[in-house]
Amino acid sequence: MYPKYANFPIFKLSSRNTMQIYKANILFTKERTQFDVIPNGYIAVDGGKVVGVYEQLPASLAGQPITDYGDKLLIPAMCDMHVHAPQYRNQGIAMDLELLPWLQNYTFPEESKYVDTAYAERMYRRFVRDLWRFGTMRTVAFATVHRDSTRLLMNLFREAGMSAHVGKVDMNRNCPDALCETVEDAIRDNEALIADCTEPDALVRPIITPRFVPSCTPELLQACGDLARKHHLPVQSHLSENRSEIAWVQELEPDSRNYGDAYRRYGLFGDTPTIMAHCVWTEGEELELMREKQVMVAHCPTSNLNLSSGTAPIRVFLNQGVPVGLGSDISGGHDLSIFKMMVYAIQVSKMLYCQDKSLPFLTLSEVFWVATKSAGQFFGKVGSFEPGYEFDALVVDDCSLNLDNYSLLHRLERFIYLGDDRQIVHRFCRGKEILEPRV
Amino acid sequence: MYPKYANFPIFKLSSRNTMQIYKANILFTKERTQFDVIPNGYIAVDGGKVVGVYEQLPASLAGQPITDYGDKLLIPAMCDMHVHAPQYRNQGIAMDLELLPWLQNYTFPEESKYVDTAYAERMYRRFVRDLWRFGTMRTVAFATVHRDSTRLLMNLFREAGMSAHVGKVDMNRNCPDALCETVEDAIRDNEALIADCTEPDALVRPIITPRFVPSCTPELLQACGDLARKHHLPVQSHLSENRSEIAWVQELEPDSRNYGDAYRRYGLFGDTPTIMAHCVWTEGEELELMREKQVMVAHCPTSNLNLSSGTAPIRVFLNQGVPVGLGSDISGGHDLSIFKMMVYAIQVSKMLYCQDKSLPFLTLSEVFWVATKSAGQFFGKVGSFEPGYEFDALVVDDCSLNLDNYSLLHRLERFIYLGDDRQIVHRFCRGKEILEPRV
Repeated sequence: MYPKYANFPIFKLSSRNTMQIYKANILFTKERTQFDVIPNGYIAVDGGKVVGVYEQLPASLAGQPITDYGDKLLIPAMCDMHVHAPQYRNQGIAMDLELLPWLQNYTFPEESKYVDTAYAERMYRRFVRDLWRFGTMRTVAFATVHRDSTRLLMNLFREAGMSAHVGKVDMNRNCPDALCETVEDAIRDNEALIADCTEPDALVRPIITPRFVPSCTPELLQACGDLARKHHLPVQSHLSENRSEIAWVQELEPDSRNYGDAYRRYGLFGDTPTIMAHCVWTEGEELELMREKQVMVAHCPTSNLNLSSGTAPIRVFLNQGVPVGLGSDISGGHDLSIFKMMVYAIQVSKMLYCQDKSLPFLTLSEVFWVATKSAGQFFGKVGSFEPGYEFDALVVDDCSLNLDNYSLLHRLERFIYLGDDRQIVHRFCRGKEILEPRV
Repeated sequence: MYPKYANFPIFKLSSRNTMQIYKANILFTKERTQFDVIPNGYIAVDGGKVVGVYEQLPASLAGQPITDYGDKLLIPAMCDMHVHAPQYRNQGIAMDLELLPWLQNYTFPEESKYVDTAYAERMYRRFVRDLWRFGTMRTVAFATVHRDSTRLLMNLFREAGMSAHVGKVDMNRNCPDALCETVEDAIRDNEALIADCTEPDALVRPIITPRFVPSCTPELLQACGDLARKHHLPVQSHLSENRSEIAWVQELEPDSRNYGDAYRRYGLFGDTPTIMAHCVWTEGEELELMREKQVMVAHCPTSNLNLSSGTAPIRVFLNQGVPVGLGSDISGGHDLSIFKMMVYAIQVSKMLYCQDKSLPFLTLSEVFWVATKSAGQFFGKVGSFEPGYEFDALVVDDCSLNLDNYSLLHRLERFIYLGDDRQIVHRFCRGKEILEPRV
């Protein structure tokens, strides 16, 4: 029986938190400006965390079981820092519409369906499965205003073993009746969801989610800020996506110095860890406030293109030390792959560079770092293979793309530019191999 | 034996030019501004050409064999109007470099390898196979300066049954020695390739291909113009891709009124059918000249993004009646899928719209029309399902994307935005089903 036992899948051991060693071509970005590349390297993992990365296996680790991925690539798993889970059905449709008719005819009617948890389950299962397909092991998601289907989404992430901050959306003005709640309902439903998640280091956690200033009264914004402070919960929302939205916020919150300041006044801008989607038009005092409060930008380049929003100045954020991650923003964005977000992030930065040569375009290592180590800090020590980081990883079999002995860096670049879910053959989150979620 | 005969693949009949009828959900763009959608429709094909499209099968066609594709989509096949076949290996690498080091360190060294026809065959076979994968049945390709490997590429397209205009590249200045030819060599090699293709209606034909003005002396440009006129051959080159290139051309051809006029003076700008890649900065007299001479724009949005070239004003070209097609421009572009070029063409038009509201962004039907019926005119009657058009078609099985009973138009939109080669299950060129080319 010995040979059969030796072939027993290794991840079973890993789930018991014993030491595990993986061998592959290892690439990650400790620093923003360059890749760490370890050809035929070893990575030791214990208790879900990286112990070390080695060119040669140290004597102290001799005798430990090794999973050998041969010539494949081993890279950190992806983080999607802004996505509307209930807009999954609308991915890639009605892209010819402008923002307002698109919201009224597609977004809000779709979100209204999530009062029905059976519909929610059918769609959310596919959504979680597709995040898995594209190698996204950490997600910051908007759900809907509905408590029960939000709880369901959290449970589906847990069932899959994938990590997420999931937000019940809060909104009580400028929205259809079906999605409009009272402040009291919002507080009660958030408290209920928060009470579900008492484990301090849980994989799946709630995040306070006022939709955006125009859809929340001052009372609701204040209630959201109070909840965040009371439970020390993170916050997500939208910021400075387009100019007419900014003007509208200025009208609604005339005492605010800028859009970001409107959140700040209610304790929703960096008092707890905060992530703001878009920030296309952020500059001046708002930029300074983001730097000071370390508010993270969820950069969503496909959404910004599809909705004619403009181009977020990511080079400026990086120069200023404002944290940045990447978001698919389904369904303003049409692509769930964070690898494709890297490509788009480079491309839109090249458009800015074309207009202003003082803003060098983003390089591959920079967008990779943004999508992994920079974004991952929102989840703790995630997105790198440095010691102590949680082992979130993807094994990439790029043999279909590696037709002429490319360098490891060119292989990674081709996978990012040309590849898709077909090349991702293993996925890990917190040291556990994550198998395909049931739909 | 009767049942077995009845199950015999239908395309065998079609290749004998008998009438064939296909049943599916048929979508195409007779007009630029809207799709023709025929749910569960019929298309009759004879002699490789469309006889008609029908909601109900006419009595006159009763008794003909029908290939029933069930709930799948049937759409025109794609045309790639600008692609550098020998840059296939460089697809998706070194995208962090600017144009000049990229040309010197990647493009020219790679093209130099094509003096070796064994290397050329290995790469060109994969290139043709991948065009097939993504549903591109018509291609306008740059090869290299090398006669033998250019002939090989033409033969591989013929062997596959896919249509192409293939250009031996002509260049004799501002290029590495290994790729520099004399005017006499250029004429001799072009004449040899032209002599191979005497069939008037051949699937694969030569196209006169001066690389661009800076790499061709006036003598070579004149020789190219003479060849085009003598054999009535089409012409392809690059035009107004970036501003420093335009300034360089002005220096080299000081008597020209603009970059396009520099080609015109040598008979290379619309005296025979002409296609020019990029046209990012085309305006004024150059635009007027393109309209007058009906020079086609090969719009390459990914390449323009990747190389920081700028954004071609496609809305202006359409308004002015300048013909437009889409090009992948491998390896300035990184994606071989013309469907993804449609997405990018919409997105970059939205960026222009964001800056100038007088230039409405391109709609899905417009980019589909550009990629099929508009581009297809370069090959004759290609790219539509109107009677008399050559039957170039794709059968799309989008069941993996059609998770919630979308409309046919939304199914097509989702396939274009989210789909890939996996959904393309049959491909036709000139009425013949095209099977996977051997690599």
